[in-house]
Amino acid sequence: MALAEPLVLYTAKVCPYAQRVELALAETGLKKDVDFERYEIDLQNKPQWYQPKINPASKVPAIAYGGPKVPGDQPSPSSTKIAESLVLLEFVADLFPDSSLLPKDPVLRAQTRFFIDAFSTKFSPVSFAFQSGKDASGDALLSAIEHVQALLAPKGFAIGDGSSVTIADLAVAPFFGRMEIVLKNDFGGYPEGEGKKVWETLQTDSRFERWRKYWADLKARDSFKATFDEAYLTERFSSRFAKAREELKASTAK
Amino acid sequence: MALAEPLVLYTAKVCPYAQRVELALAETGLKKDVDFERYEIDLQNKPQWYQPKINPASKVPAIAYGGPKVPGDQPSPSSTKIAESLVLLEFVADLFPDSSLLPKDPVLRAQTRFFIDAFSTKFSPVSFAFQSGKDASGDALLSAIEHVQALLAPKGFAIGDGSSVTIADLAVAPFFGRMEIVLKNDFGGYPEGEGKKVWETLQTDSRFERWRKYWADLKARDSFKATFDEAYLTERFSSRFAKAREELKASTAK
Ligand SMILES: N[C@@H](CCC(=O)N[C@@H](CS)C(=O)NCC(=O)O)C(=O)O
Ligand SMILES: N[C@@H](CCC(=O)N[C@@H](CS)C(=O)NCC(=O)O)C(=O)O
Repeated sequence: MALAEPLVLYTAKVCPYAQRVELALAETGLKKDVDFERYEIDLQNKPQWYQPKINPASKVPAIAYGGPKVPGDQPSPSSTKIAESLVLLEFVADLFPDSSLLPKDPVLRAQTRFFIDAFSTKFSPVSFAFQSGKDASGDALLSAIEHVQALLAPKGFAIGDGSSVTIADLAVAPFFGRMEIVLKNDFGGYPEGEGKKVWETLQTDSRFERWRKYWADLKARDSFKATFDEAYLTERFSSRFAKAREELKASTAK
Repeated sequence: MALAEPLVLYTAKVCPYAQRVELALAETGLKKDVDFERYEIDLQNKPQWYQPKINPASKVPAIAYGGPKVPGDQPSPSSTKIAESLVLLEFVADLFPDSSLLPKDPVLRAQTRFFIDAFSTKFSPVSFAFQSGKDASGDALLSAIEHVQALLAPKGFAIGDGSSVTIADLAVAPFFGRMEIVLKNDFGGYPEGEGKKVWETLQTDSRFERWRKYWADLKARDSFKATFDEAYLTERFSSRFAKAREELKASTAK
């Protein structure tokens, strides 16, 4: 399968939203820097042209599609610029209607989108609250994972009979990947040990058996391995959370 | 165009999310209570079976699709239950792939979804904050409308050349309808007169010219007229906001 028009993906290795789109492109079989250009944006030091020429919201991911074939740092005014990871997941699925990214059946398509909505509203805020230390118990995070787990197909991937990866799986995988790093390294604004404790529960408690298998299946995909740099993320998160831990220690020492 | 399977829409006249789906069904040309059943849920007094059998989140809108043809209050376990208004807009578009509800071009489809995302993240929270009285200035609301306006096609409906209604238009129309009622009747937790002032600006200021025409076009659709009961909503909002105004008066009188 090939693209009808030139495509540049603006992305950042650190960003889970951006990884969603990298996963989708990888799952279509497109080859990075052959079939499309992958352009890494340094979020700490964004190029001057990025916000005015690519994304007024100044975020990754974004795609420039169409127009003449130009290098990522010389965007053409005649390409269409598209932002928002969930919009882009659907866009990639629409570019490849014969891929399995979105099933053809309207009911299964609706279940794919409902799954993503449930993840966004149930898992994301709770996961953020735990990592930041605002809700240190971890119970809400475990409940949110159970909630998502209850929506999974009995085996395999999330939707239908579980036999094919869809955008539902690609929407969640980057967040589970980052959660694993955060928890097992105990990175977070919570008291020391709380992250490891939650990770231990996820690894051993029988109530998370279905989720464990699901997450193992996602991680084993070539698309995931090619777009997830565990060492890099561990390093980045380590410094980000060191600050939060220090603040917590200072405040509880008083 | 007809449906392949029985469909029941669970809805409530008061709810803007539910009106989105009523609009989409109306735009496909399906006839309510002929081609599908419209089942009104009294949100103040929901039927006991609604939450366990239709929507665990206990909200409208929801659709029961497929299975045997049964009355709305006797749902069959073999129909699929689908919730979330934006999921349902896509579902109706998927049931009628030859309607204009979603364009066929992947770029236009992405722009449709981006528009809805921008409306949800930019307009909805600000509108709610103004109506509740949390942000009484109205400036943020006017800016949010300008932001949405900037995403509209130069004329006609939101997407592409503006010639066809899409789910982008149907996602926003119920909220503009309720905003009009709220502002022109000065319903809200803000000081008296603030709602009318914002409405006056929207009606007269040249910077909202494009939005005014857009909103007039949306309101003029048969689908909108058939699914929007202004008198009923005015009555409902009147009592809902009377309480907020009284609380405000009591607190400022101190
Ligand atoms: N809602 C957006 C969120 C994207 C987002 O928040 N991206 C972050 C990085 S993970 C970003 O680019 N932030 C801007 C910055 O860091 O300056 C999406 O789903 O694409
Ligand atoms: N995110 C949902 C929101 C739906 C919603 O909030 N519906 C309200 C009425 S407008 C509801 O049913 N609330 C439950 C209740 O009133 O008990 C959607 O887009 O469908």
